[in-house]
Order: sequence, then C-alpha cells, then structure tokens
Amino acid sequence: MKPKVGSYTFHVESYACDFRGKATLPVIGNFLLRAATIHAQERGFGYEAIVKDHTAWVLSRMSLEMYEYPEHDQDLTVETWVEDVTRLFTQRCLRFIDSGGKVVGYARTIWAAIDMETRRPKDILSWRPDLSSYIAEDVDCPIAKPGKIPNAAGEPAMGYAVRYSDIDINCHVNSIKYIEHTIDAFGLEMFQRNTIRRFEIIYMAEATFGDKLKLYKEEAAPGAFVIDTKKDEESVCRCRIEWEGLKA
Amino acid sequence: MKPKVGSYTFHVESYACDFRGKATLPVIGNFLLRAATIHAQERGFGYEAIVKDHTAWVLSRMSLEMYEYPEHDQDLTVETWVEDVTRLFTQRCLRFIDSGGKVVGYARTIWAAIDMETRRPKDILSWRPDLSSYIAEDVDCPIAKPGKIPNAAGEPAMGYAVRYSDIDINCHVNSIKYIEHTIDAFGLEMFQRNTIRRFEIIYMAEATFGDKLKLYKEEAAPGAFVIDTKKDEESVCRCRIEWEGLKA
Repeated sequence: MKPKVGSYTFHVESYACDFRGKATLPVIGNFLLRAATIHAQERGFGYEAIVKDHTAWVLSRMSLEMYEYPEHDQDLTVETWVEDVTRLFTQRCLRFIDSGGKVVGYARTIWAAIDMETRRPKDILSWRPDLSSYIAEDVDCPIAKPGKIPNAAGEPAMGYAVRYSDIDINCHVNSIKYIEHTIDAFGLEMFQRNTIRRFEIIYMAEATFGDKLKLYKEEAAPGAFVIDTKKDEESVCRCRIEWEGLKA
Repeated sequence: MKPKVGSYTFHVESYACDFRGKATLPVIGNFLLRAATIHAQERGFGYEAIVKDHTAWVLSRMSLEMYEYPEHDQDLTVETWVEDVTRLFTQRCLRFIDSGGKVVGYARTIWAAIDMETRRPKDILSWRPDLSSYIAEDVDCPIAKPGKIPNAAGEPAMGYAVRYSDIDINCHVNSIKYIEHTIDAFGLEMFQRNTIRRFEIIYMAEATFGDKLKLYKEEAAPGAFVIDTKKDEESVCRCRIEWEGLKA
C-alpha cells in the first residue's frame, strides 16, 4: 500500500507569475488540484478509476492559508493526505513547502462524489468503504476549516459573462476560474501593499456558458472581504479573503 | 554540448481542459513556453542566465497549427529547436507529439531580446554570438511563418479591462492571456462545430493594469478571422484564426 501522505514538487514558472514575481492563487490552486489528482490516482480512487462508476469528484469548499508566496523559478512541494471520509464528503489536507524546506502554507479541501448523470452526491461510505483506510492520523493541518460565508449585497463591484475559457470538462465554470475572477475584484494597489493571508471558497451552484455573473464585495471586518459571485439573485460561489499588510 | 533539439513531455490535466475534454490553446501555449524555457536554460541562454545582462526574451510573433488537440489525461511531448538567429530576432520551432507518437501540430515563435531598463531590442548577434551554434539544420517545421495581419475595425465584438490576473512579471499583459481573451471572442457553438486549425499572433504594443481593451473581429476569408485587440486606436496584438469544421 502506498504511504498515506503523497508529496509532489512543482515549478513556479516565471511567465505564470504575477507582477510581483510570485505565484498567484490560481497557480497554487492548480498545483493543489494536480497533487490531489495524482495522490488519488496512485491509490485507486482517481478520475479514471471512478469514471467507471459514472462518478466524479467535485470540490465543494476550500480554505487556504499562505504565509509566504513562492517566487518565480522556485520549486514548491505539495504534500497531501486524506483527513476524513464521511457519508457525503472527503476532507483532503495539503501542506506547501518551499525549496528551502520551509512550510509556507496549508489548505483544507472538501470534496463530494457526484453521479455524472444525475449530478447528485453519492454515499461515499457505501460506494467506496476502502477510502477510510487512507485516512492519515499522524499529520496535522493547523488551519481552520472552511466555514460559513454570509451573503454580500449592495452594488456589484464587477461582472463578467461566462466564456469558452471559463468552462471545464463538465460544462460548468472551472473551479479555479472562479478564484481568478474573484481576486480580480481587487485593484493592483491592494496587491502592491498587501498579500492574501487566508482564502476561503464555497461552491454553491453551477454556472455555465453565457451566464452573466456579478461579484458583490463587502468588507466584513478590517482587511477581510466577502466576495459573492451571483447569477441573478443566486450565489454560485462565495469567497472570504483576509489580507495582511506587507512588511516594509 | 546538449543536443540541438530538446524534448519535453507534459500532462494534459482534465481540470484544465475545455468543455470538449481537450487541451485549450492557452494550455498548449503554456507547454510551448515551458519547453522553450527549459531548452534555453539547459543551453545557457535561459531567463536566469540573461537577466545578468539585464535582458529578457520577449515573444514577438507566433504561428501554430494543430491537426489534433490532445485529450484530457494524455501526455503531450513538445520538441523544440532554434531555427535561425538574426540581429533582432531568434526563431524557435516546436513540434507537438501525442502519446502514441503521432505528430499533432507545429509552432513557429519569433523572439526579441530586450534590455530590461530601456525596453529596447538588443543586437542578438553581437550580444550572444554563441547562439547561432545551436541552430538545428536537420529538422523541419512545415508550417508558414507568422505573417502580417491586417487591422480590423467596425464595432468591437468584446472588451475587457486589464486586471491583476492578466498582468505578468514585467507588469504588462501576459502573452498567453491575450490568446485566452482573443479566443473568448467566439461563442461556444463555434467550438462545438469547429476547431482552430491555425492560429497566428503578433504582439505590437504593451498593455498594462487598468487599460480598457477592445477586440475587433472581422471574417477575412471563409472561416478565417482577424481579431485585433486595441487600446484606444492602437493595436496591442493582432491574431488570425483559421477554423476547420469538425468531421462528423
């Protein structure tokens, strides 16, 4: 049996970095998905294995904390393990380690297994009782779970129509693309003076091609913003972003 | 000395594919940049080597033809070599090979070396006379070079404001992001019925944060479109896209 914790190293491409020369949240999000994909695949519950059961993993919630963002042309190692399996969700944790061996962040992700035809969640414990044997007991993810995020209202801060590049293989908006559009609701000066310390996202509904989405932004506490992406009155995803001022 | 042709294999992630389950042009473009980056780095003229001369490679033009798009969860091998070095430009070719060994596409890229302070092009032949020794003579790239692309006008088909996620490490719009926005000027039904056989791009000016860009689209010949991205009256990049109807 494969070890419960998988470890995967990625390279932060300079051409994919932001204006500060650092990995963006979508870049880190893609590393996270890649690590989760390989970890699951190596252990027999990856995309290709479960598609035979007409089932797909769907990311439901995530919380992520970054203490330092990896710089261009550096490696980032992502360790990942399953923390818990319940009837409706699996919880997967991730730890981010820079090329010097320093832990620079953590993430918690919560996944549902959905039936690809009905789009309804499966009972994971009866569908794949073996998954619980992969739960890692001796590793710790010391960040808070993704919590509830309140509705945001007022005037929309930004809007976009869902286009070809937003749509994934399931014909819905790509989970990383929501993150990209959400952080784009902030101006450049915000990124010049501050950095995102904690990010949370809850996926609530599915948007598809041509949908016109609006982003509502509210400062819920000093430096902590709720960004609510809505289709008409319905929230399709909600994010909570905690910024930290850059040290001089 | 390293062989003149470098070969690099990448994985087409299902979560980065389009609604057809195929790699998008931006995904292929990122593989292309990754292959070019490693190839140059292994031969002593990569980003980290030339930054010491306050110099950066800047993509100036590209033509790309894809006969088949790689499918999700497949590998794509990218072979690349230098075809020519002149005073102002280097020409780098790329060949795309699927996991079965079949050639599925080619690209030609034209690069300038710019001084990072003045943003002016360098004389490559006097700056790095050694580059010519990497020219590969016995490989062929059987697609047309990127040619001139005419101005497009009329009513804009689409517009966008440049945001955080569009901006690269040089504080200008990322070269792949221009491609992403350009293909987003087409509706989903175009991608359902057709596929992009040939794509050309010319980078003409630099756009930066907050710029409001407009895309002008003209059908120059049946199935061949010019998409001109403009800031006010000035073209920042022009693309030519040839579509091919999907076989039943």
